[in-house]
Amino acid sequence: MFKKIAIVGTGLIGGSLALNIKKKRIALEVVGVSRHKSSLAKARSLGAIDKGSQGLGIIKGADLIILATPVNQILNLAEKISRIAGDDAIVTDVGSTKQEIVARLENIFPNFVGSHPLAGSEKRSIANADPEIFEGTICILTPTRKTKSRALNRIKEFWRRVGVTTINLTPESHDMVLSVTSHLPHIAAFSLIQSVPVKYFRFASGGLKDTTRIAASDTELWLDVFLSNRNNTLKAIAQLQKNLARVKSALKNKDRKSLAKILKGAKVKREKLQ
Amino acid sequence: MFKKIAIVGTGLIGGSLALNIKKKRIALEVVGVSRHKSSLAKARSLGAIDKGSQGLGIIKGADLIILATPVNQILNLAEKISRIAGDDAIVTDVGSTKQEIVARLENIFPNFVGSHPLAGSEKRSIANADPEIFEGTICILTPTRKTKSRALNRIKEFWRRVGVTTINLTPESHDMVLSVTSHLPHIAAFSLIQSVPVKYFRFASGGLKDTTRIAASDTELWLDVFLSNRNNTLKAIAQLQKNLARVKSALKNKDRKSLAKILKGAKVKREKLQ
Repeated sequence: MFKKIAIVGTGLIGGSLALNIKKKRIALEVVGVSRHKSSLAKARSLGAIDKGSQGLGIIKGADLIILATPVNQILNLAEKISRIAGDDAIVTDVGSTKQEIVARLENIFPNFVGSHPLAGSEKRSIANADPEIFEGTICILTPTRKTKSRALNRIKEFWRRVGVTTINLTPESHDMVLSVTSHLPHIAAFSLIQSVPVKYFRFASGGLKDTTRIAASDTELWLDVFLSNRNNTLKAIAQLQKNLARVKSALKNKDRKSLAKILKGAKVKREKLQ
Repeated sequence: MFKKIAIVGTGLIGGSLALNIKKKRIALEVVGVSRHKSSLAKARSLGAIDKGSQGLGIIKGADLIILATPVNQILNLAEKISRIAGDDAIVTDVGSTKQEIVARLENIFPNFVGSHPLAGSEKRSIANADPEIFEGTICILTPTRKTKSRALNRIKEFWRRVGVTTINLTPESHDMVLSVTSHLPHIAAFSLIQSVPVKYFRFASGGLKDTTRIAASDTELWLDVFLSNRNNTLKAIAQLQKNLARVKSALKNKDRKSLAKILKGAKVKREKLQ
Protein backbone atom coordinates (compact mmCIF):
# COMPACT_ATOMS: atom_id res chain seq x y z
CA MET A 1 0.00 0.00 0.00
CA PHE A 2 2.96 2.31 0.69
CA LYS A 3 6.50 2.16 -0.54
CA LYS A 4 8.16 3.57 2.52
CA ILE A 5 6.60 4.33 5.88
CA ALA A 6 8.60 6.43 8.33
CA ILE A 7 7.67 6.22 12.01
CA VAL A 8 9.00 9.03 14.16
CA GLY A 9 9.02 7.77 17.73
CA THR A 10 9.48 4.02 18.10
CA GLY A 11 7.87 3.70 21.52
CA LEU A 12 4.89 1.58 22.53
CA ILE A 13 2.48 2.87 19.87
CA GLY A 14 5.05 3.59 17.14
CA GLY A 15 6.73 0.23 17.70
CA SER A 16 3.47 -1.71 17.81
CA LEU A 17 2.36 0.02 14.63
CA ALA A 18 5.66 -0.83 12.94
CA LEU A 19 5.26 -4.50 13.88
CA ASN A 20 1.68 -4.46 12.60
CA ILE A 21 2.74 -2.84 9.29
CA LYS A 22 5.50 -5.40 8.76
CA LYS A 23 3.25 -8.31 9.69
CA LYS A 24 0.51 -7.20 7.30
CA ARG A 25 2.95 -6.05 4.62
CA ILE A 26 1.36 -2.63 4.42
CA ALA A 27 4.64 -1.13 3.20
CA LEU A 28 7.70 -2.34 1.34
CA GLU A 29 9.97 -0.58 3.79
CA VAL A 30 9.56 0.71 7.34
CA VAL A 31 12.07 3.12 8.85
CA GLY A 32 12.13 4.42 12.42
CA VAL A 33 13.42 7.53 14.13
CA SER A 34 14.12 7.70 17.85
CA ARG A 35 16.22 9.77 20.22
CA HIS A 36 17.25 6.51 21.84
CA LYS A 37 19.74 4.22 20.13
CA SER A 38 18.57 1.31 22.30
CA SER A 39 14.99 1.77 21.12
CA LEU A 40 16.11 1.59 17.48
CA ALA A 41 18.26 -1.47 18.12
CA LYS A 42 15.32 -3.21 19.82
CA ALA A 43 12.97 -2.21 16.97
CA ARG A 44 15.38 -3.66 14.43
CA SER A 45 15.91 -6.86 16.39
CA LEU A 46 12.13 -7.34 16.67
CA GLY A 47 11.79 -6.86 12.92
CA ALA A 48 9.60 -3.80 13.47
CA ILE A 49 11.75 -1.57 11.24
CA ASP A 50 14.14 -2.17 8.37
CA LYS A 51 16.33 0.78 9.23
CA GLY A 52 16.56 3.15 12.15
CA SER A 53 18.22 6.47 12.80
CA GLN A 54 18.51 9.12 15.46
CA GLY A 55 18.44 11.71 12.71
CA LEU A 56 15.40 12.77 10.71
CA GLY A 57 17.20 12.44 7.33
CA ILE A 58 16.09 8.82 7.10
CA ILE A 59 12.47 9.80 6.47
CA LYS A 60 13.37 11.23 3.05
CA GLY A 61 11.34 9.60 0.30
CA ALA A 62 8.66 8.20 2.63
CA ASP A 63 5.14 8.29 1.22
CA LEU A 64 3.64 7.93 4.70
CA ILE A 65 5.09 9.60 7.79
CA ILE A 66 3.62 8.72 11.19
CA LEU A 67 4.45 10.99 14.11
CA ALA A 68 4.31 8.80 17.22
CA THR A 69 6.20 10.86 19.80
CA PRO A 70 4.59 12.58 22.81
CA VAL A 71 2.39 15.56 21.88
CA ASN A 72 5.03 18.18 22.61
CA GLN A 73 7.61 16.51 20.40
CA ILE A 74 5.11 16.23 17.56
CA LEU A 75 4.68 20.00 17.74
CA ASN A 76 8.41 20.62 18.08
CA LEU A 77 9.57 18.33 15.28
CA ALA A 78 6.97 19.19 12.64
CA GLU A 79 8.81 22.10 10.99
CA LYS A 80 12.05 20.19 10.78
CA ILE A 81 10.34 17.13 9.32
CA SER A 82 8.53 19.23 6.73
CA ARG A 83 11.87 20.43 5.36
CA ILE A 84 12.88 16.79 4.69
CA ALA A 85 9.56 15.23 3.70
CA GLY A 86 8.35 15.39 0.12
CA ASP A 87 5.25 17.48 -0.57
CA ASP A 88 3.41 14.35 -1.70
CA ALA A 89 4.06 12.52 1.57
CA ILE A 90 0.96 11.79 3.58
CA VAL A 91 1.54 12.72 7.21
CA THR A 92 -0.42 11.60 10.25
CA ASP A 93 0.19 11.54 13.99
CA VAL A 94 -1.07 9.40 16.85
CA GLY A 95 -1.21 12.13 19.49
CA SER A 96 -3.79 11.99 22.27
CA THR A 97 -4.93 15.58 21.72
CA LYS A 98 -5.91 17.01 18.37
CA GLN A 99 -6.81 20.71 18.33
CA GLU A 100 -3.34 22.08 18.86
CA ILE A 101 -1.64 19.46 16.68
CA VAL A 102 -4.05 19.66 13.75
CA ALA A 103 -4.09 23.47 13.74
CA ARG A 104 -0.32 23.52 13.57
CA LEU A 105 0.43 20.54 11.34
CA GLU A 106 -2.14 21.13 8.63
CA ASN A 107 -0.41 24.43 7.96
CA ILE A 108 2.97 22.74 7.74
CA PHE A 109 2.18 19.58 5.75
CA PRO A 110 0.17 19.67 2.50
CA ASN A 111 -1.23 16.17 3.11
CA PHE A 112 -1.87 15.99 6.84
CA VAL A 113 -4.62 13.99 8.58
CA GLY A 114 -4.82 13.79 12.38
CA SER A 115 -5.28 10.33 13.91
CA HIS A 116 -5.78 9.09 17.44
CA PRO A 117 -5.83 5.31 17.80
CA LEU A 118 -7.54 4.49 21.11
CA ALA A 119 -5.03 1.78 21.93
CA GLY A 120 -2.17 1.60 24.38
CA SER A 121 -1.68 0.91 28.03
CA GLU A 122 0.14 2.19 31.07
CA LYS A 123 3.23 0.46 29.72
CA ARG A 124 5.66 2.20 27.44
CA SER A 125 8.59 1.67 25.07
CA ILE A 126 9.32 -0.70 22.23
CA ALA A 127 9.98 -3.46 24.78
CA ASN A 128 6.22 -3.73 25.30
CA ALA A 129 5.31 -3.33 21.61
CA ASP A 130 2.68 -5.73 20.30
CA PRO A 131 1.17 -5.68 16.79
CA GLU A 132 -2.15 -6.91 18.25
CA ILE A 133 -2.85 -3.97 20.58
CA PHE A 134 -4.92 -2.32 17.83
CA GLU A 135 -7.18 -5.34 17.35
CA GLY A 136 -10.82 -4.37 17.76
CA THR A 137 -10.04 -0.78 18.78
CA ILE A 138 -11.13 2.42 17.12
CA CYS A 139 -9.08 5.27 15.70
CA ILE A 140 -10.48 8.77 15.64
CA LEU A 141 -9.62 10.78 12.51
CA THR A 142 -9.93 14.55 12.68
CA PRO A 143 -10.22 15.90 9.12
CA THR A 144 -10.95 19.60 8.65
CA ARG A 145 -11.99 21.68 5.65
CA LYS A 146 -8.33 21.85 4.71
CA THR A 147 -7.86 18.06 4.63
CA LYS A 148 -7.39 16.64 1.13
CA SER A 149 -9.81 13.82 0.41
CA ARG A 150 -7.11 11.65 -1.17
CA ALA A 151 -4.98 11.90 1.97
CA LEU A 152 -8.00 11.16 4.17
CA ASN A 153 -8.95 8.11 2.12
CA ARG A 154 -5.42 6.74 2.17
CA ILE A 155 -5.22 7.17 5.96
CA LYS A 156 -8.62 5.56 6.43
CA GLU A 157 -7.51 2.60 4.33
CA PHE A 158 -4.22 2.45 6.24
CA TRP A 159 -5.98 2.11 9.60
CA ARG A 160 -8.42 -0.41 8.16
CA ARG A 161 -5.47 -2.56 7.13
CA VAL A 162 -3.98 -2.20 10.63
CA GLY A 163 -7.22 -3.68 11.96
CA VAL A 164 -8.84 -0.57 13.36
CA THR A 165 -12.27 1.01 12.80
CA THR A 166 -12.05 4.74 12.07
CA ILE A 167 -14.51 7.40 13.20
CA ASN A 168 -14.33 11.05 12.10
CA LEU A 169 -14.61 13.85 14.65
CA THR A 170 -13.65 17.49 14.47
CA PRO A 171 -10.46 18.24 16.42
CA GLU A 172 -12.63 20.24 18.84
CA SER A 173 -15.06 17.37 19.47
CA HIS A 174 -12.19 14.94 19.80
CA ASP A 175 -10.57 16.98 22.53
CA MET A 176 -13.84 17.50 24.38
CA VAL A 177 -14.73 13.79 24.31
CA LEU A 178 -11.24 12.58 25.21
CA SER A 179 -10.86 15.01 28.09
CA VAL A 180 -13.74 13.13 29.70
CA THR A 181 -13.21 9.54 28.54
CA SER A 182 -9.43 9.43 28.86
CA HIS A 183 -7.74 12.46 30.42
CA LEU A 184 -10.10 12.61 33.41
CA PRO A 185 -9.68 8.90 34.35
CA HIS A 186 -5.93 9.44 34.33
CA ILE A 187 -6.19 12.47 36.60
CA ALA A 188 -8.56 10.55 38.87
CA ALA A 189 -6.10 7.64 39.05
CA PHE A 190 -3.10 9.92 39.74
CA SER A 191 -5.07 11.74 42.47
CA LEU A 192 -6.50 8.57 43.97
CA ILE A 193 -3.18 6.80 44.42
CA GLN A 194 -1.80 9.98 46.03
CA SER A 195 -4.62 9.68 48.59
CA VAL A 196 -3.46 6.24 49.78
CA PRO A 197 -0.49 5.99 52.17
CA VAL A 198 2.09 3.42 51.01
CA LYS A 199 1.88 1.69 54.41
CA TYR A 200 -1.72 0.72 53.53
CA PHE A 201 -0.74 -0.96 50.25
CA ARG A 202 -0.59 -4.40 51.86
CA PHE A 203 -4.35 -4.13 52.35
CA ALA A 204 -5.00 -3.17 48.73
CA SER A 205 -7.64 -5.20 46.95
CA GLY A 206 -8.46 -5.51 43.27
CA GLY A 207 -10.60 -2.38 43.35
CA LEU A 208 -7.75 -0.08 44.32
CA LYS A 209 -5.42 -1.73 41.84
CA ASP A 210 -7.84 -1.41 38.94
CA THR A 211 -8.86 2.16 39.67
CA THR A 212 -5.23 3.28 39.83
CA ARG A 213 -3.56 1.04 37.22
CA ILE A 214 -3.18 3.93 34.75
CA ALA A 215 -1.47 6.07 37.38
CA ALA A 216 1.65 4.10 36.39
CA SER A 217 1.46 5.67 32.91
CA ASP A 218 4.21 7.71 31.32
CA THR A 219 4.00 11.05 33.10
CA GLU A 220 5.78 13.12 30.41
CA LEU A 221 3.25 11.93 27.85
CA TRP A 222 0.28 12.83 30.06
CA LEU A 223 1.74 16.14 31.14
CA ASP A 224 1.77 17.16 27.47
CA VAL A 225 -1.75 15.87 26.97
CA PHE A 226 -3.22 17.74 29.94
CA LEU A 227 -1.48 21.00 29.01
CA SER A 228 -2.40 20.63 25.35
CA ASN A 229 -6.07 20.07 26.22
CA ARG A 230 -6.13 22.31 29.24
CA ASN A 231 -9.56 23.96 29.08
CA ASN A 232 -11.48 20.75 28.44
CA THR A 233 -9.51 18.90 31.08
CA LEU A 234 -10.20 21.62 33.66
CA LYS A 235 -13.92 21.34 32.89
CA ALA A 236 -13.77 17.57 33.23
CA ILE A 237 -12.05 17.83 36.61
CA ALA A 238 -14.71 20.30 37.74
CA GLN A 239 -17.40 17.79 36.78
CA LEU A 240 -15.74 15.04 38.81
CA GLN A 241 -15.37 17.42 41.74
CA LYS A 242 -19.08 18.18 41.54
CA ASN A 243 -19.97 14.49 41.57
CA LEU A 244 -17.64 13.78 44.49
CA ALA A 245 -19.15 16.69 46.39
CA ARG A 246 -22.65 15.27 45.83
CA VAL A 247 -21.63 11.92 47.36
CA LYS A 248 -19.85 13.66 50.22
CA SER A 249 -22.81 15.88 51.00
CA ALA A 250 -25.31 12.99 50.99
CA LEU A 251 -23.01 10.96 53.23
CA LYS A 252 -22.37 13.88 55.56
CA ASN A 253 -26.12 14.40 55.94
CA LYS A 254 -26.74 10.65 56.39
CA ASP A 255 -29.12 11.06 53.48
CA ARG A 256 -29.50 7.37 52.65
CA LYS A 257 -32.10 7.97 49.97
CA SER A 258 -30.02 10.48 47.97
CA LEU A 259 -26.89 8.41 48.36
CA ALA A 260 -28.73 5.28 47.17
CA LYS A 261 -29.97 7.20 44.14
CA ILE A 262 -26.47 8.43 43.22
CA LEU A 263 -24.89 4.98 43.57
CA LYS A 264 -27.70 3.26 41.71
CA GLY A 265 -27.46 5.79 38.87
CA ALA A 266 -23.72 5.19 38.63
CA LYS A 267 -24.11 1.41 38.64
CA VAL A 268 -26.78 1.44 35.92
CA LYS A 269 -24.56 3.71 33.84
CA ARG A 270 -21.45 1.59 34.32
CA GLU A 271 -23.33 -1.50 33.22
CA LYS A 272 -23.87 0.20 29.85
CA LEU A 273 -20.11 0.46 29.34
CA GLN A 274 -18.96 -2.84 27.89
CA MET B 1 -12.55 -28.92 61.81
CA PHE B 2 -16.20 -28.04 62.51
CA LYS B 3 -19.25 -30.25 62.73
CA LYS B 4 -21.72 -27.81 61.30
CA ILE B 5 -21.05 -24.46 59.69
CA ALA B 6 -23.99 -22.13 59.10
CA ILE B 7 -23.61 -19.39 56.50
CA VAL B 8 -26.13 -16.59 56.74
CA GLY B 9 -26.25 -14.93 53.32
CA THR B 10 -25.39 -17.20 50.40
CA GLY B 11 -24.29 -14.45 48.02
CA LEU B 12 -20.95 -14.06 46.28
CA ILE B 13 -18.79 -14.25 49.43
CA GLY B 14 -21.01 -16.58 51.45
CA GLY B 15 -21.47 -18.89 48.48
CA SER B 16 -17.77 -18.89 47.56
CA LEU B 17 -16.89 -19.61 51.17
CA ALA B 18 -19.40 -22.48 51.28
CA LEU B 19 -17.87 -24.00 48.13
CA ASN B 20 -14.40 -23.62 49.61
CA ILE B 21 -15.45 -25.25 52.89
CA LYS B 22 -17.03 -28.20 51.08
CA LYS B 23 -14.06 -28.60 48.76
CA LYS B 24 -11.58 -28.60 51.62
CA ARG B 25 -13.84 -30.60 53.95
CA ILE B 26 -13.53 -27.99 56.68
CA ALA B 27 -16.93 -29.05 58.09
CA LEU B 28 -19.04 -32.19 58.11
CA GLU B 29 -22.13 -30.18 57.25
CA VAL B 30 -22.73 -26.76 55.71
CA VAL B 31 -26.12 -25.09 55.92
CA GLY B 32 -27.16 -21.81 54.32
CA VAL B 33 -29.70 -19.11 55.05
CA SER B 34 -30.94 -16.66 52.44
CA ARG B 35 -33.96 -14.47 51.89
CA HIS B 36 -34.02 -15.76 48.34
CA LYS B 37 -35.28 -19.27 47.56
CA SER B 38 -33.48 -19.19 44.21
CA SER B 39 -30.15 -18.45 45.89
CA LEU B 40 -30.58 -21.48 48.17
CA ALA B 41 -31.58 -23.71 45.26
CA LYS B 42 -28.50 -22.60 43.32
CA ALA B 43 -26.26 -23.11 46.38
CA ARG B 44 -27.62 -26.63 46.79
CA SER B 45 -27.26 -27.49 43.12
CA LEU B 46 -23.64 -26.27 43.15
CA GLY B 47 -22.95 -28.43 46.18
CA ALA B 48 -22.08 -25.36 48.26
CA ILE B 49 -24.51 -26.26 51.05
CA ASP B 50 -26.09 -29.46 52.29
CA LYS B 51 -29.29 -27.79 53.39
CA GLY B 52 -30.76 -24.34 52.94
CA SER B 53 -33.58 -22.39 54.53
CA GLN B 54 -35.16 -18.97 54.43
CA GLY B 55 -35.61 -19.24 58.20
CA LEU B 56 -32.87 -18.87 60.77
CA GLY B 57 -33.90 -22.05 62.65
CA ILE B 58 -31.58 -24.12 60.49
CA ILE B 59 -28.48 -22.66 62.17
CA LYS B 60 -29.32 -24.45 65.42
CA GLY B 61 -26.45 -26.67 66.54
CA ALA B 62 -23.84 -24.98 64.33
CA ASP B 63 -20.40 -24.69 65.95
CA LEU B 64 -19.41 -21.97 63.47
CA ILE B 65 -21.77 -19.28 62.22
CA ILE B 66 -20.62 -16.96 59.43
CA LEU B 67 -22.60 -13.81 58.82
CA ALA B 68 -22.18 -12.98 55.13
CA THR B 69 -25.01 -10.57 54.46
CA PRO B 70 -24.59 -6.83 53.76
CA VAL B 71 -23.46 -4.84 56.81
CA ASN B 72 -26.92 -3.58 57.72
CA GLN B 73 -28.40 -7.08 57.72
CA ILE B 74 -25.57 -8.33 59.91
CA LEU B 75 -26.53 -5.69 62.44
CA ASN B 76 -30.24 -6.37 62.08
CA LEU B 77 -30.10 -10.16 62.29
CA ALA B 78 -27.61 -10.52 65.14
CA GLU B 79 -30.10 -10.47 68.05
CA LYS B 80 -32.38 -12.96 66.35
CA ILE B 81 -29.51 -15.30 65.54
CA SER B 82 -28.21 -15.14 69.12
CA ARG B 83 -31.51 -16.52 70.40
CA ILE B 84 -31.05 -19.62 68.20
CA ALA B 85 -27.28 -20.11 68.31
CA GLY B 86 -25.70 -22.09 71.12
CA ASP B 87 -23.47 -20.16 73.55
CA ASP B 88 -20.50 -22.27 72.42
CA ALA B 89 -20.94 -21.38 68.77
CA ILE B 90 -18.11 -19.34 67.31
CA VAL B 91 -19.51 -16.46 65.32
CA THR B 92 -17.77 -14.37 62.69
CA ASP B 93 -18.86 -12.04 59.92
CA VAL B 94 -17.35 -10.97 56.61
CA GLY B 95 -18.60 -7.38 56.65
CA SER B 96 -16.56 -4.63 54.99
CA THR B 97 -16.69 -2.34 58.04
CA LYS B 98 -15.80 -3.44 61.52
CA GLN B 99 -16.25 -0.80 64.25
CA GLU B 100 -20.03 -0.79 64.30
CA ILE B 101 -20.34 -4.56 63.77
CA VAL B 102 -17.75 -5.60 66.35
CA ALA B 103 -19.05 -3.19 68.99
CA ARG B 104 -22.54 -4.61 68.59
CA LEU B 105 -21.83 -8.28 67.98
CA GLU B 106 -19.28 -8.89 70.69
CA ASN B 107 -21.94 -7.88 73.19
CA ILE B 108 -24.43 -10.28 71.66
CA PHE B 109 -22.31 -13.38 71.00
CA PRO B 110 -20.00 -14.88 73.67
CA ASN B 111 -17.55 -16.15 71.02
CA PHE B 112 -17.45 -13.48 68.35
CA VAL B 113 -14.46 -12.56 66.16
CA GLY B 114 -14.78 -9.98 63.37
CA SER B 115 -13.35 -10.94 59.96
CA HIS B 116 -12.98 -9.11 56.70
CA PRO B 117 -11.65 -11.23 53.84
CA LEU B 118 -10.28 -8.85 51.19
CA ALA B 119 -11.76 -10.86 48.35
CA GLY B 120 -14.71 -10.28 46.08
CA SER B 121 -15.47 -8.36 42.94
CA GLU B 122 -18.06 -6.09 41.40
CA LYS B 123 -20.10 -9.21 40.71
CA ARG B 124 -22.63 -10.54 43.15
CA SER B 125 -24.80 -13.55 43.99
CA ILE B 126 -24.19 -17.27 44.27
CA ALA B 127 -24.22 -17.48 40.45
CA ASN B 128 -20.71 -15.96 40.46
CA ALA B 129 -19.46 -17.93 43.47
CA ASP B 130 -16.01 -19.44 43.12
CA PRO B 131 -14.11 -21.30 45.86
CA GLU B 132 -10.85 -19.89 44.47
CA ILE B 133 -11.56 -16.18 44.99
CA PHE B 134 -9.81 -16.34 48.38
CA GLU B 135 -6.60 -17.77 46.96
CA GLY B 136 -3.63 -15.60 47.90
CA THR B 137 -5.76 -12.91 49.54
CA ILE B 138 -5.64 -11.66 53.11
CA CYS B 139 -8.32 -11.56 55.76
CA ILE B 140 -8.25 -8.90 58.45
CA LEU B 141 -9.29 -10.11 61.91
CA THR B 142 -10.37 -7.52 64.46
CA PRO B 143 -10.05 -9.02 67.95
CA THR B 144 -10.61 -6.75 70.95
CA ARG B 145 -9.95 -7.15 74.67
CA LYS B 146 -13.27 -8.97 74.89
CA THR B 147 -12.34 -11.59 72.25
CA LYS B 148 -11.75 -15.08 73.66
CA SER B 149 -8.40 -16.49 72.57
CA ARG B 150 -9.92 -19.90 71.80
CA ALA B 151 -12.42 -18.31 69.43
CA LEU B 152 -9.70 -16.20 67.82
CA ASN B 153 -7.45 -19.22 67.30
CA ARG B 154 -10.24 -21.27 65.78
CA ILE B 155 -11.15 -18.46 63.39
CA LYS B 156 -7.49 -17.97 62.44
CA GLU B 157 -7.17 -21.67 61.70
CA PHE B 158 -10.43 -21.60 59.76
CA TRP B 159 -9.18 -18.87 57.42
CA ARG B 160 -5.83 -20.58 57.06
CA ARG B 161 -7.64 -23.69 55.86
CA VAL B 162 -9.68 -21.56 53.40
CA GLY B 163 -6.34 -20.45 51.93
CA VAL B 164 -6.15 -16.95 53.34
CA THR B 165 -3.46 -15.14 55.36
CA THR B 166 -4.85 -13.38 58.41
CA ILE B 167 -3.69 -10.05 59.83
CA ASN B 168 -4.97 -8.57 63.10
CA LEU B 169 -6.09 -4.94 63.28
CA THR B 170 -8.24 -3.11 65.79
CA PRO B 171 -11.73 -2.41 64.45
CA GLU B 172 -10.80 1.29 64.46
CA SER B 173 -7.62 0.78 62.39
CA HIS B 174 -9.47 -1.53 60.04
CA ASP B 175 -12.09 1.07 59.27
CA MET B 176 -9.53 3.82 58.82
CA VAL B 177 -7.40 1.74 56.44
CA LEU B 178 -10.31 0.37 54.45
CA SER B 179 -11.94 3.79 54.04
CA VAL B 180 -8.86 4.71 52.02
CA THR B 181 -7.92 1.45 50.28
CA SER B 182 -11.41 0.28 49.42
CA HIS B 183 -14.26 2.68 50.17
CA LEU B 184 -12.59 5.67 48.51
CA PRO B 185 -11.81 3.84 45.23
CA HIS B 186 -15.47 2.84 45.05
CA ILE B 187 -16.63 6.41 45.58
CA ALA B 188 -14.11 7.61 42.99
CA ALA B 189 -15.39 5.03 40.51
CA PHE B 190 -19.06 5.89 41.14
CA SER B 191 -18.29 9.62 40.76
CA LEU B 192 -16.07 9.16 37.72
CA ILE B 193 -18.59 7.20 35.68
CA GLN B 194 -21.22 9.83 36.53
CA SER B 195 -18.89 12.40 34.94
CA VAL B 196 -18.93 10.65 31.55
CA PRO B 197 -21.95 11.10 29.25
CA VAL B 198 -23.26 7.75 27.91
CA LYS B 199 -22.97 9.08 24.34
CA TYR B 200 -19.17 9.14 24.81
CA PHE B 201 -18.99 5.47 25.83
CA ARG B 202 -18.16 4.37 22.27
CA PHE B 203 -14.85 6.20 22.69
CA ALA B 204 -14.04 4.52 25.99
CA SER B 205 -10.63 2.94 26.24
CA GLY B 206 -9.22 0.48 28.75
CA GLY B 207 -8.34 3.27 31.18
CA LEU B 208 -11.94 4.39 31.67
CA LYS B 209 -13.14 0.81 31.93
CA ASP B 210 -10.58 -0.15 34.56
CA THR B 211 -10.99 2.97 36.67
CA THR B 212 -14.78 2.52 36.79
CA ARG B 213 -15.15 -1.28 36.85
CA ILE B 214 -16.13 -1.31 40.53
CA ALA B 215 -18.88 1.27 39.89
CA ALA B 216 -20.92 -1.75 38.77
CA SER B 217 -20.76 -3.11 42.33
CA ASP B 218 -23.80 -3.90 44.46
CA THR B 219 -25.05 -0.48 45.54
CA GLU B 220 -27.01 -1.66 48.60
CA LEU B 221 -23.89 -3.29 49.97
CA TRP B 222 -21.77 -0.15 49.48
CA LEU B 223 -24.47 2.16 50.78
CA ASP B 224 -24.29 0.25 54.06
CA VAL B 225 -20.50 0.35 54.06
CA PHE B 226 -20.23 4.09 53.50
CA LEU B 227 -22.86 4.89 56.14
CA SER B 228 -21.34 2.44 58.61
CA ASN B 229 -17.88 3.98 58.15
CA ARG B 230 -19.06 7.51 57.57
CA ASN B 231 -16.44 9.63 59.35
CA ASN B 232 -13.44 7.84 57.88
CA THR B 233 -15.00 7.82 54.43
CA LEU B 234 -15.71 11.56 54.59
CA LYS B 235 -12.06 12.16 55.49
CA ALA B 236 -10.90 9.96 52.62
CA ILE B 237 -13.09 11.86 50.16
CA ALA B 238 -11.67 15.14 51.45
CA GLN B 239 -8.16 13.83 50.80
CA LEU B 240 -9.03 12.91 47.23
CA GLN B 241 -10.65 16.32 46.74
CA LYS B 242 -7.46 17.96 47.96
CA ASN B 243 -5.33 15.96 45.52
CA LEU B 244 -7.67 16.71 42.62
CA ALA B 245 -7.59 20.39 43.50
CA ARG B 246 -3.79 20.33 43.43
CA VAL B 247 -3.76 18.93 39.90
CA LYS B 248 -6.44 21.37 38.82
CA SER B 249 -4.61 24.34 40.23
CA ALA B 250 -1.28 23.41 38.62
CA LEU B 251 -3.02 22.86 35.28
CA LYS B 252 -4.98 26.09 35.56
CA ASN B 253 -1.73 28.01 36.20
CA LYS B 254 0.06 26.17 33.38
CA ASP B 255 2.55 25.25 36.07
CA ARG B 256 4.32 22.49 34.16
CA LYS B 257 6.89 21.93 36.87
CA SER B 258 4.40 21.40 39.71
CA LEU B 259 2.18 19.25 37.54
CA ALA B 260 5.15 17.10 36.50
CA LYS B 261 6.07 16.67 40.15
CA ILE B 262 2.55 15.56 41.11
CA LEU B 263 2.25 13.08 38.24
CA LYS B 264 5.72 11.67 38.79
CA GLY B 265 5.04 11.24 42.51
CA ALA B 266 1.83 9.37 41.70
CA LYS B 267 3.52 7.14 39.15
CA VAL B 268 6.37 6.21 41.48
CA LYS B 269 3.83 5.43 44.19
CA ARG B 270 1.62 3.33 41.94
CA GLU B 271 4.62 1.28 40.86
CA LYS B 272 5.02 0.20 44.49
CA LEU B 273 1.53 -1.30 44.47
CA GLN B 274 1.84 -4.81 43.05
